[in-house]
Amino acid sequence: MTKKVNFGIIGAGRIGTVHAEGISTRIATAAVFAISDISPEAAQLCASRLVIPLATRNHRDLLENPAIDAVVICSSTDTHTQFICEAAEAGKHIFCEKPIALDLPAIDKALATVARCSVKLQIGFNRRFDSNFRHIQETVAAGKIGTPHLVRITSRDPAPPPISYIKVSGGIFLDMTIHDFDMARYLIGGEVTELYAAGGVLVDPAIGEAGDIDTAVITLRYTNGAIGIIDNSRKAVYGYDQRAEVFGSAGSIESQNKTPYNTICSTAAGVQGVNPLYFFLERYMDSYAAEMRAFIDCIQNDAPSPVSGLDGRIPVVMGLAAWKSYREQRPVKLSEVAG
Amino acid sequence: MTKKVNFGIIGAGRIGTVHAEGISTRIATAAVFAISDISPEAAQLCASRLVIPLATRNHRDLLENPAIDAVVICSSTDTHTQFICEAAEAGKHIFCEKPIALDLPAIDKALATVARCSVKLQIGFNRRFDSNFRHIQETVAAGKIGTPHLVRITSRDPAPPPISYIKVSGGIFLDMTIHDFDMARYLIGGEVTELYAAGGVLVDPAIGEAGDIDTAVITLRYTNGAIGIIDNSRKAVYGYDQRAEVFGSAGSIESQNKTPYNTICSTAAGVQGVNPLYFFLERYMDSYAAEMRAFIDCIQNDAPSPVSGLDGRIPVVMGLAAWKSYREQRPVKLSEVAG
Amino acid sequence: MTKKVNFGIIGAGRIGTVHAEGISTRIATAAVFAISDISPEAAQLCASRLVIPLATRNHRDLLENPAIDAVVICSSTDTHTQFICEAAEAGKHIFCEKPIALDLPAIDKALATVARCSVKLQIGFNRRFDSNFRHIQETVAAGKIGTPHLVRITSRDPAPPPISYIKVSGGIFLDMTIHDFDMARYLIGGEVTELYAAGGVLVDPAIGEAGDIDTAVITLRYTNGAIGIIDNSRKAVYGYDQRAEVFGSAGSIESQNKTPYNTICSTAAGVQGVNPLYFFLERYMDSYAAEMRAFIDCIQNDAPSPVSGLDGRIPVVMGLAAWKSYREQRPVKLSEVAG
Amino acid sequence: MTKKVNFGIIGAGRIGTVHAEGISTRIATAAVFAISDISPEAAQLCASRLVIPLATRNHRDLLENPAIDAVVICSSTDTHTQFICEAAEAGKHIFCEKPIALDLPAIDKALATVARCSVKLQIGFNRRFDSNFRHIQETVAAGKIGTPHLVRITSRDPAPPPISYIKVSGGIFLDMTIHDFDMARYLIGGEVTELYAAGGVLVDPAIGEAGDIDTAVITLRYTNGAIGIIDNSRKAVYGYDQRAEVFGSAGSIESQNKTPYNTICSTAAGVQGVNPLYFFLERYMDSYAAEMRAFIDCIQNDAPSPVSGLDGRIPVVMGLAAWKSYREQRPVKLSEVAG
Repeated sequence: MTKKVNFGIIGAGRIGTVHAEGISTRIATAAVFAISDISPEAAQLCASRLVIPLATRNHRDLLENPAIDAVVICSSTDTHTQFICEAAEAGKHIFCEKPIALDLPAIDKALATVARCSVKLQIGFNRRFDSNFRHIQETVAAGKIGTPHLVRITSRDPAPPPISYIKVSGGIFLDMTIHDFDMARYLIGGEVTELYAAGGVLVDPAIGEAGDIDTAVITLRYTNGAIGIIDNSRKAVYGYDQRAEVFGSAGSIESQNKTPYNTICSTAAGVQGVNPLYFFLERYMDSYAAEMRAFIDCIQNDAPSPVSGLDGRIPVVMGLAAWKSYREQRPVKLSEVAG
Repeated sequence: MTKKVNFGIIGAGRIGTVHAEGISTRIATAAVFAISDISPEAAQLCASRLVIPLATRNHRDLLENPAIDAVVICSSTDTHTQFICEAAEAGKHIFCEKPIALDLPAIDKALATVARCSVKLQIGFNRRFDSNFRHIQETVAAGKIGTPHLVRITSRDPAPPPISYIKVSGGIFLDMTIHDFDMARYLIGGEVTELYAAGGVLVDPAIGEAGDIDTAVITLRYTNGAIGIIDNSRKAVYGYDQRAEVFGSAGSIESQNKTPYNTICSTAAGVQGVNPLYFFLERYMDSYAAEMRAFIDCIQNDAPSPVSGLDGRIPVVMGLAAWKSYREQRPVKLSEVAG
Repeated sequence: MTKKVNFGIIGAGRIGTVHAEGISTRIATAAVFAISDISPEAAQLCASRLVIPLATRNHRDLLENPAIDAVVICSSTDTHTQFICEAAEAGKHIFCEKPIALDLPAIDKALATVARCSVKLQIGFNRRFDSNFRHIQETVAAGKIGTPHLVRITSRDPAPPPISYIKVSGGIFLDMTIHDFDMARYLIGGEVTELYAAGGVLVDPAIGEAGDIDTAVITLRYTNGAIGIIDNSRKAVYGYDQRAEVFGSAGSIESQNKTPYNTICSTAAGVQGVNPLYFFLERYMDSYAAEMRAFIDCIQNDAPSPVSGLDGRIPVVMGLAAWKSYREQRPVKLSEVAG
Repeated sequence: MTKKVNFGIIGAGRIGTVHAEGISTRIATAAVFAISDISPEAAQLCASRLVIPLATRNHRDLLENPAIDAVVICSSTDTHTQFICEAAEAGKHIFCEKPIALDLPAIDKALATVARCSVKLQIGFNRRFDSNFRHIQETVAAGKIGTPHLVRITSRDPAPPPISYIKVSGGIFLDMTIHDFDMARYLIGGEVTELYAAGGVLVDPAIGEAGDIDTAVITLRYTNGAIGIIDNSRKAVYGYDQRAEVFGSAGSIESQNKTPYNTICSTAAGVQGVNPLYFFLERYMDSYAAEMRAFIDCIQNDAPSPVSGLDGRIPVVMGLAAWKSYREQRPVKLSEVAG
């Protein structure tokens, strides 16, 4: 029998806690050995609740501990590439939340280090492990809808993040659309060469004052001629709206939202269905466990990462291109940005 | 080219007007030549609106007119068998609204007269011509769900009829369930041998005081062992609820309600679909025209009636058996009633 | 009581026949008095079938006939503005199929003639009278989804038209998307200022050889900042795909496809729903009658046309702008085209 | 903080393993301390896999162990009441799988012992903890559909159990419908006074030879006049069909099946949805954990059991009444059976 994979979690914020809890309670083949956070209280709190042996304020304690096989990087985005490099040098396998970074040279340096050190790297594009999107991908890959012609992705959050977050996140194209850029590639297994981004501030003027937009439509051109459309809003009052469709020469496959239950209530006032699951924690909880199982599998079986460093880099390129397109009001080729 | 079929309508009430208008405006192969009603004003009003040449208070004027090929009997139920016999003797083809009558000897006499006079007779079980139920019937007949094991029919009106109607209608099993009894036979092409009726007065005590019930569940046993369930209510506040399912050894085919449009409105208050079409005029308008086209076809091509006199008689037997079962609180075989 | 409106139909092709039949059999307040076609056989065939008194090869016979109140122009697009002018001069009210014309000066001349002669003009954007799209429009107008932020229109044909048609139709943006351009304005009652069209030949190379494309995505910018998306394909193998969504500050309203019946068949092989109605004749038959009723109402009550000449002109501007955008690969303002 | 509840599992078969795994991996407030089975290999296998400290062939080892707070009885039905009595005498709280037993005197003795020993007893009607059925119950309890008039429960298994199981299970009404009898009470919080069971052998003659039936329809009469309908089949080829509806004076609430993902695939061959989750392990896995959390809560907070011993007894009465009704072909009052 294979030995359990021992994890160190770097960052005890919301997503770090999600991964710590997922590994602790939903995955039989791994354990959380340590957790670090620049706030020692946050690390300790999470460690107590989940009975994690070691809590520390210093991520080096994890990297230098020989009991730890792999790290999950859930710290702020500006620390990702540094921690990737350090972890790789320490011989730890690496799971890193998206985006890898907001600048491409830092990303390239990190990916080179990972390659040199021969450790596994998986990027946290968890939606690839959601049963809806996975089923679309499999249906397309099986040829059931023929050659893809159109890809439609609807991705709307229930409420905007705090303005403080928006100021450091890289803006909508790098904190939100980045997931959809990954989906655009994943669903049909194809690469995008050019995009055109339209957008505006329709939800909250404060978002505009922070230099961001809150509503966007991005048109994508794939190498094979297919066309993609992403529509984004930071505020869908009815809940998290996460749907996709691939339309091709032999048909269409589309996903609907997931709901907490499947009921219909009919009264004189109308026929009432169920709102979508509220936000990403509700909607994608299963996919967080599933992506981690896939990462553990790739460590235990020495298999390629299902979401590679390059898979992490390309959506950043797309996000940068989207900003350029939005600002210059013209279609932009990814090659203009990716250098 | 075949000559148009000239119709006389007997009875200018609600359903008589529906048929007059359907033949006049939706059917190219027929025309309404005359209409009669014991209220001459009613006959005249309908004639004016639809440009019908002849309006009269005496149905004999229709029967004696050689220009008329067929009659549509839409008068009150207690006149049906008399008018059937008179029309048959006059050599007119006959379309008669359901139920043929409430007593079996009168029905048998009428059917014998029709047979002797060799005219066509079709009973107004219009739901057989609704696209939903027709598709279920075709799917079952094509063997796609295997051997039928269960038949479920939901049939609920949006609001009860006037108490005055209930007093002469024969009650729920003969004015409302009678359509479902026909559906039960039609959907799987099988005969029922026994039924058990449970029911009560849950909607309006005045219905109980009139000797009727307003809520019912009827269990049916088919000759081949299949089991049927009909549930009825005289008041579904959300609109006319008309659904059916046939479940068999190889699967299930079920129909949902029809709606005036197909939209979904999602707000913070919920995800709102569309109420069913309100009542039978909205829901079954197409089927009224379709049953009449089928009747015209059977006249023009000398084909058997798609809803025969026997098809009209059996649901009456079932209605009488349902009342007996309800009153005696036990399963009743149709043979106990049908003699 | 108001007198019936007497119609002359110019053009006895497919859509001319649809209107002739609709007026003859589904509308009580109008009649078809005459039909013309450059093929006298076509005119005669339609006249015989629908019992239309007059059939002719010369549309002037209609215009000069004082019994005729209004004409329906269903001839080829290149004759529309000429016939509009002639009919207006003859004092006939005018229902004209879309597009009015492919060049703007001719349109402007026709609209000026109509205005001078004070006749009614309605353009054949029938989808405004479809119950789904109408309900979206009403829901948005009632403020139920707040301020519109995004408009999504999916419009895919089941099969491409003949190449001969494509060569004279003005191409996808003027023969197909033109309906969606009208919808884009109608659904939220707003004007578009700029658009970006991406497209390609993915369905059939012969379409490309004819100078057209078969797959397109158009991004629209509204004056109020809202963003629209139209996706088109000339070939959806599963049937006519006609859906729309408006998403706003208080929610979303979307329509699904219409189907001939509403059934679900569950077998070991899957859970099977019903394909959309096959094409526009099946899908929009009710809307053809409804738009004609609206035209008749505006004649009888001297009311403004519900789809004015300007409503017919703007989508042509949008179609021309879409071609310019597609060819120059950049966003194009409508003012660049409309002069 | 409350101390964890230590469990002993009696019976290491399929459902025992489900509970052992659920408590071990999905519930933070409890642990599995020991597992017993008459097959020591089965107990050991489960213990190894889930790292359970103690595996034994003798359930007395669990009852006599002071570290154990509660037992989960998952052994064969004929041992349930004996083990309930022994566990109660040993002061252990008891979670017992359904049915408690097939004979009422044994049940009554067990419930009396539980009452005397003042331990908690919860019966394994897990469906009460399914989000669909819970939402129906809450909607009805909130008065949103008014006074309940009709209750419809569809409950169909994807495939029959082995004939060996059928021979000892008490037959369809006690091994399968028993869950639906519980649902019938739970959904509207009402009691049934009389039932009528129709049924037959339509799926497999071997089931009939074993003395059982495989298809059934049961009509229920509630004390308040409402009417219930349960339809059962041992074989729905499309998967586990678990739906319910409550219809009342102010509307209807119904649940649809749950599926592994929510996609629609449209091709020329049709519009394909997703089959229901295959069987109870897939469909109700969340509800197994939820019922156990509720049991732990009632232990930790000394609260009443959410599914009491009486809640376990009544469905057995209903099952026995259903067999009597089926055999005597007449409606049977529960009082005829319950003594």
